[in-house]
Amino acid sequence: MRLRTVVSDTHGSRAEVRVDGDWFASPARDVGELLASPNWIAALGERPSDAVRSAPVVSGPGKIVCCGHNYRAHIAEMNRPTPEFPTLFAKFADTLTAWDADIALPGAAESLGLDWEAELAVVVGVPLRHADRSTARAAIAGYTVANDFSMRAWQRRTSQWLQGKAFEASTPLGPELVTPDEADPADGLRIICRVNGVEEQSGSTDDLVFDPATLLAYISEFTTLRPGDVVLTGTPGGVGAAATPPRHLRPGDVVETEIEGIGLLRNRITTTERQSR
Amino acid sequence: MRLRTVVSDTHGSRAEVRVDGDWFASPARDVGELLASPNWIAALGERPSDAVRSAPVVSGPGKIVCCGHNYRAHIAEMNRPTPEFPTLFAKFADTLTAWDADIALPGAAESLGLDWEAELAVVVGVPLRHADRSTARAAIAGYTVANDFSMRAWQRRTSQWLQGKAFEASTPLGPELVTPDEADPADGLRIICRVNGVEEQSGSTDDLVFDPATLLAYISEFTTLRPGDVVLTGTPGGVGAAATPPRHLRPGDVVETEIEGIGLLRNRITTTERQSR
Repeated sequence: MRLRTVVSDTHGSRAEVRVDGDWFASPARDVGELLASPNWIAALGERPSDAVRSAPVVSGPGKIVCCGHNYRAHIAEMNRPTPEFPTLFAKFADTLTAWDADIALPGAAESLGLDWEAELAVVVGVPLRHADRSTARAAIAGYTVANDFSMRAWQRRTSQWLQGKAFEASTPLGPELVTPDEADPADGLRIICRVNGVEEQSGSTDDLVFDPATLLAYISEFTTLRPGDVVLTGTPGGVGAAATPPRHLRPGDVVETEIEGIGLLRNRITTTERQSR
Repeated sequence: MRLRTVVSDTHGSRAEVRVDGDWFASPARDVGELLASPNWIAALGERPSDAVRSAPVVSGPGKIVCCGHNYRAHIAEMNRPTPEFPTLFAKFADTLTAWDADIALPGAAESLGLDWEAELAVVVGVPLRHADRSTARAAIAGYTVANDFSMRAWQRRTSQWLQGKAFEASTPLGPELVTPDEADPADGLRIICRVNGVEEQSGSTDDLVFDPATLLAYISEFTTLRPGDVVLTGTPGGVGAAATPPRHLRPGDVVETEIEGIGLLRNRITTTERQSR
């Protein structure tokens, strides 16, 4: 099953479900709200989609938890030891944007050191607290695609990455939530990032040190995960910051982020008038 | 003016406002929702408080942004340079708890390395984006008290602090929001943390490298701050981790966190049955 969040002129933001190749509107305002509704499958109506534009798959998650340093091949190429614990940081709900949205940066975009990070995203389906790995696995509503676009100049100002990872509307998420019966990262799905058509990142989702269920179980040790919460699982090798010399995105660049069997994001880098400090 | 969030048997969670020494209930479910209502002062009714227990001043903020390394005296005693940029990290809304709540930790509480961090908290009153310092200053709804209780063992597992700072219901916030006309951190308010009656931390709110308005303006460069959002401004010297040998809290300890003219938190450390990994 595939689910998405869209905006229509008549109904504003709403979740939709694909049935037999066609999209149908639900009463929920986004996929997160849909997942939080008891017995939501029974409540689906037969109203055809009237989508006019896209939105993040989950528009207002209570929590977005991100993991760094999680692909073995990338860790090895950086000559780092395999981590014992996942490196976790947070994003805010309004850091998310649609799968096809422009990433609009302040005027001095190049000074931000904007970099790409293709990531598998996991969406939580039921509440989880102190869960073991198998309970966590059963609580996964599905998978989608994210690009954790990072402002390296801000990320490196201090020891904590948040300020380089939380620029408003900088993390595309979508286009659809794919339920686990349709795609399983343990099967080794190819994850790719292309910049202006050139493949820069390539990895496989079976190369994760901490797989989705392990991450959810770990996070649930200290906090409750709820329906619609999002976990980003880290990025494979090939980011611009690791190149010699380091490379950054520029206005006009087009970034495509794809996970086999799950989906494709396409985002153009643009600038706004405003200067960032 | 002083505002708080409480729970009553008849109305559930709600915001209250103190008028002439008495508390009156508002229609809003928490102080954050009250601040987000247009012309909320005019909407206040005359229903006396029927509070039965306390709640975090803001129960469901969209954002909690925290600053580390922000007191000059503490930075100096650690022989660190004065930072050029604020070190920022996030908490989740359900990390908050009431001013008088027990801090209930998993069974192996001592292995968490639970430490105290008295902090001045700032609550945002109006939306802020790309704000200068004076606009940010005018957007402050008020101040309250927090203790950023930290699980040092988890905080130090990786480079990113989140997992040691986001244990559910571990950050007391309250007891009241005090509006800027009643208390100004620039006046140098004393901030203190006592453990079992012994003063462990003592500082002054005029010793901040990045004061509240500067922090809000800085954060607004990359994201929008909205009514009810909370910014924690960092802790002065005297945390347990900086002692030789390091000290940690134990079940039964009572921690009091006080800021002159703003308020006092009192939290007892307890354990639950559950073991943390």
